[in-house]
Amino acid sequence: MAERAKGPRLALGIAYRGQAYSGWQRQPVEPTVQGRLESALSEFAAQPVDTMCAGRTDTGVHGLNQVVHIDPPVVRELNSWVRGTNRYLPPDIAVLWCREVGPEFHARYSALGRRYTYVLLESPVRPAIEVGSAGWVFTPLDGDRMREATCVLIGEHDFSAFRSSECQANSPVRRLNAIEIRRCGAYWRFDFDGNAFLHHMIRNIMGCLIAVGAGRRPPSWMAEVLAARLRLHAAPTFSPAGLYFAGPYYDPALDLPTHTAAMDWLPR
Amino acid sequence: MAERAKGPRLALGIAYRGQAYSGWQRQPVEPTVQGRLESALSEFAAQPVDTMCAGRTDTGVHGLNQVVHIDPPVVRELNSWVRGTNRYLPPDIAVLWCREVGPEFHARYSALGRRYTYVLLESPVRPAIEVGSAGWVFTPLDGDRMREATCVLIGEHDFSAFRSSECQANSPVRRLNAIEIRRCGAYWRFDFDGNAFLHHMIRNIMGCLIAVGAGRRPPSWMAEVLAARLRLHAAPTFSPAGLYFAGPYYDPALDLPTHTAAMDWLPR
Repeated sequence: MAERAKGPRLALGIAYRGQAYSGWQRQPVEPTVQGRLESALSEFAAQPVDTMCAGRTDTGVHGLNQVVHIDPPVVRELNSWVRGTNRYLPPDIAVLWCREVGPEFHARYSALGRRYTYVLLESPVRPAIEVGSAGWVFTPLDGDRMREATCVLIGEHDFSAFRSSECQANSPVRRLNAIEIRRCGAYWRFDFDGNAFLHHMIRNIMGCLIAVGAGRRPPSWMAEVLAARLRLHAAPTFSPAGLYFAGPYYDPALDLPTHTAAMDWLPR
Repeated sequence: MAERAKGPRLALGIAYRGQAYSGWQRQPVEPTVQGRLESALSEFAAQPVDTMCAGRTDTGVHGLNQVVHIDPPVVRELNSWVRGTNRYLPPDIAVLWCREVGPEFHARYSALGRRYTYVLLESPVRPAIEVGSAGWVFTPLDGDRMREATCVLIGEHDFSAFRSSECQANSPVRRLNAIEIRRCGAYWRFDFDGNAFLHHMIRNIMGCLIAVGAGRRPPSWMAEVLAARLRLHAAPTFSPAGLYFAGPYYDPALDLPTHTAAMDWLPR
């Protein structure tokens, strides 16, 4: 941290539209969500503020309840951190809430699990009003085939087959708790719950689920892909446009918000 | 029309995100939806194509099923008009469908009525992922108070009180068939159905409904505003961000699409 903390550690919930940003992680030049957030926090605090997040997101991926922790260099009311920081943030990023947490809280390491939602338009015509906010397929999908294909993914597995070559994780083993697939009018909604996710893991799983749902591969193919543990066996990485980080969850005793208004925006 | 029509008159359904455009109507310099659409149609037809729309929308207002008619200077398959034109349109505008209609069909004058939807976020924190796509109030609203206030608006009235000073309509009399108000999680959804709407009419009604819903005015105030027939009695024009033109409807015998995939995107 750039300055000695003057107040207790804080957790903040953040929503953002990822379209205009080169992902979460701060970079020297390109605009990133972390870069903008830290600028705004530092502007408000009139001192440098660093953030640690629960899950880094890629270029074009959105956040519904990203959680960061900070060690504030100044003491302010909790609500002032929300309203004051939002004044310095661009219109597609907002701080949703701010809570005091203990010094042992860590946005990333304290997380018990993470949720992601993928929203997919199934239509002969490409998106327009939801451009950048939904993936798109023009082939009709079969929900039952996709649900059947997800079964083999649930549990603890070596997910190397769904891992990008740039993934920096030490281990390819992750635990997927659930994948729920629902039709919402012209859209499909995929809700993922797992302990953590590898780089591109959800977009690679989406590519495979769509190949199965469109009838290009049988549901049993997913088991082959998983067992092969090689990226080249899977379908291409699917678009980031429909991917939303719905946020981490922590020990319920911490009582941090897990539902945000932004979540009600998506088809359900 | 710039060229003599070579094919039968066509009706097309259009969806667009209004944020980047100075409204529907073609203008010499600024980007408009009509300007982009006519460029794309002309590019596809390799000849100038003019459009006539069902309802012009303002800067920042979105379209879910805008309808235009054209007298095509070339003969192409209906589906080619959709796919071919979309190739030349920016990603936030799309042609959804194309149907042949009789020479007496007119996108504007044949419309029996029009539907608009307003989506409003009620939250202490401003929008982020839905920025430009929803209005915003931080004061909690009372749905019953707002519903009570709408009653006096239903039917045929002189809506001068809700008309902008720039409105070009000959008569301020319009017929409002229904206003439905529903809560959808953190959002409110207002569905308007009427024969036609004056310039800024819905945004001005929204300003008044919010004043009533937030408790700043009694529900009975709406009757006073309407009766006064003077714009200055009403609340300020509300933001265009949450306003969607859900499209016109015609004689059912024409069998033109009234539901589009884009409509399933909004909270409901």
